[in-house]
Amino acid sequence: MRALVFDGKALDYRDDHPDPQPPAGEAVVRPLVAGICATDLEICRGYMGFSGVLGHEFVGVVESVADTRDEAAAELVGQRVVGTINCVCGVCDMCTRGLREHCRSRTVLGIDGRDGCFADRFTLPVENLIPVPDAVDNDHAVFTEPLAAACQILRQLRIEGTPYVTVLGDGRLGLLVAQVMARLNASVRVIGKHPHKLELCTKWSIKHRRLDQVMSRNDQDIVIDCTGSSEGLKIAMDMVRPRGRIVLKTTVADPAGIDLAPLVVNEVEVIGSRCGPFGEALALLAGGEVDVLSLITRRTRIDKSVQAMHNAARSDDIKTLIEFD
Amino acid sequence: MRALVFDGKALDYRDDHPDPQPPAGEAVVRPLVAGICATDLEICRGYMGFSGVLGHEFVGVVESVADTRDEAAAELVGQRVVGTINCVCGVCDMCTRGLREHCRSRTVLGIDGRDGCFADRFTLPVENLIPVPDAVDNDHAVFTEPLAAACQILRQLRIEGTPYVTVLGDGRLGLLVAQVMARLNASVRVIGKHPHKLELCTKWSIKHRRLDQVMSRNDQDIVIDCTGSSEGLKIAMDMVRPRGRIVLKTTVADPAGIDLAPLVVNEVEVIGSRCGPFGEALALLAGGEVDVLSLITRRTRIDKSVQAMHNAARSDDIKTLIEFD
Repeated sequence: MRALVFDGKALDYRDDHPDPQPPAGEAVVRPLVAGICATDLEICRGYMGFSGVLGHEFVGVVESVADTRDEAAAELVGQRVVGTINCVCGVCDMCTRGLREHCRSRTVLGIDGRDGCFADRFTLPVENLIPVPDAVDNDHAVFTEPLAAACQILRQLRIEGTPYVTVLGDGRLGLLVAQVMARLNASVRVIGKHPHKLELCTKWSIKHRRLDQVMSRNDQDIVIDCTGSSEGLKIAMDMVRPRGRIVLKTTVADPAGIDLAPLVVNEVEVIGSRCGPFGEALALLAGGEVDVLSLITRRTRIDKSVQAMHNAARSDDIKTLIEFD
Repeated sequence: MRALVFDGKALDYRDDHPDPQPPAGEAVVRPLVAGICATDLEICRGYMGFSGVLGHEFVGVVESVADTRDEAAAELVGQRVVGTINCVCGVCDMCTRGLREHCRSRTVLGIDGRDGCFADRFTLPVENLIPVPDAVDNDHAVFTEPLAAACQILRQLRIEGTPYVTVLGDGRLGLLVAQVMARLNASVRVIGKHPHKLELCTKWSIKHRRLDQVMSRNDQDIVIDCTGSSEGLKIAMDMVRPRGRIVLKTTVADPAGIDLAPLVVNEVEVIGSRCGPFGEALALLAGGEVDVLSLITRRTRIDKSVQAMHNAARSDDIKTLIEFD
């Protein structure tokens, strides 16, 4: 089958990659559309030390399941699905205390110990698969995973009144986070570097500024770092007010190297935030409450995916989709 | 008068330092006992870019006030007091929203823009001074400021049940934090490097281990970094469980340089924590609920304070007190 593989050093497109065999409890999924995420680009710079098939954002069709006697699983065959990316043991201390996404022995689709979705076929546990409502077409459904990651912020922060919220970064994730936060009536602004990306905020009636046009005055109640750069936290510390909160979404391959004393002096709270609730994301997509189509910069086919990854790293890119037909 | 001055490069003991004149609203205080804190040592390594008289932990006697027609102020003259260290404007956005310790134009005793207490006399605003109950003698009262900083953690964390709490660092602050946390029935352990300091925990029935004897297993609910080292946060990230909390007490002169991706991957919350409630600290001291006398390593006179600072930087030191008679 066709697959985009990162071998630990370089990207390699293959058309003879072996088909996956689903272990017990898992399904084979044939992706219809997949999305390239900043994490995929970071992996190619060494993040997580991953090697294997890349990719974790997809909408696909269930082709088969390992255990056909499991009726619930068998019913999924032929259905259009999205899938959560953390594959868990169910028995460790994290799983049993309700922190399954933090399973001690998890694998993560295309990120940690498990081949990803940039291939004609891949496997995921049946319990990870979520049918997509008819109201959500493929171009919307493929945004479920990153939109869920944006929704996760609302699960972690208690938002009261109308706090001043800055979303740092006008990239793939920042523009989703901005839309999710703006629904709360919070006074949201996006700070970025790319005029054509910030322009989308005008369309959505969300305030925005270029980074070089703002004064950092330690006056924001909440700053959400979606820069994908190790500089992001430093800028966030300059913008957040004393006793304010910084949400960290950035994971980068380089160690940071920044002075953290302002966190202590200003008694700031920093909250790391990762994967989120797919149900909430699908509901937002089904209700047309978030504009994802405007984020699609390019469409490419899986056999052109090496070039697509290079393009996705360009500053004009927001979301590159990979198609398989 | 006698004073210990850091001139931006070196420590200098002077016996001809000019006496301070109290501005409106301030009092002249004559310290009886002062304490050397890790922050004093960090300032000598460049932290905060401070120059001037060092010192912010004291118990003293009010010698005079600027405005003798202010009856409340005049009543303080002759009283034994401790004092909060942030001197605030009262009118900026931080002051008016109840975050006075974070005043935009504050000065901080012996740390930022204001001469400290390692001198025969110094000034503080009258509103910063708190009379010391007779039940609290000088050797106890001089611990009010660092003990308040330990109490601040309880104002910032919601503690439910009996979480696993690790206090990282067996120094001045760590040993106070451990005693405060242990009062909550939390399962508290102290991790340090110094057997003779950890031994104090045995006396207080607090669990303790040497750093080189513990496995870091991401299983602690709360980790409080009192190491005073930029390595502290890295160790804390290895010890805290997913979705757990790290309280950062460490402020150091060196930038950190550590990989912060685990904060995001494990969705950890980091809470910066600085100065705390003097009233709570005085109540603990008056009730004999915290053992501070065991922390006193050395006593020295102000004219030997340069040497005292060097001694305080030695690993066997816990608390060095400076006396003035």
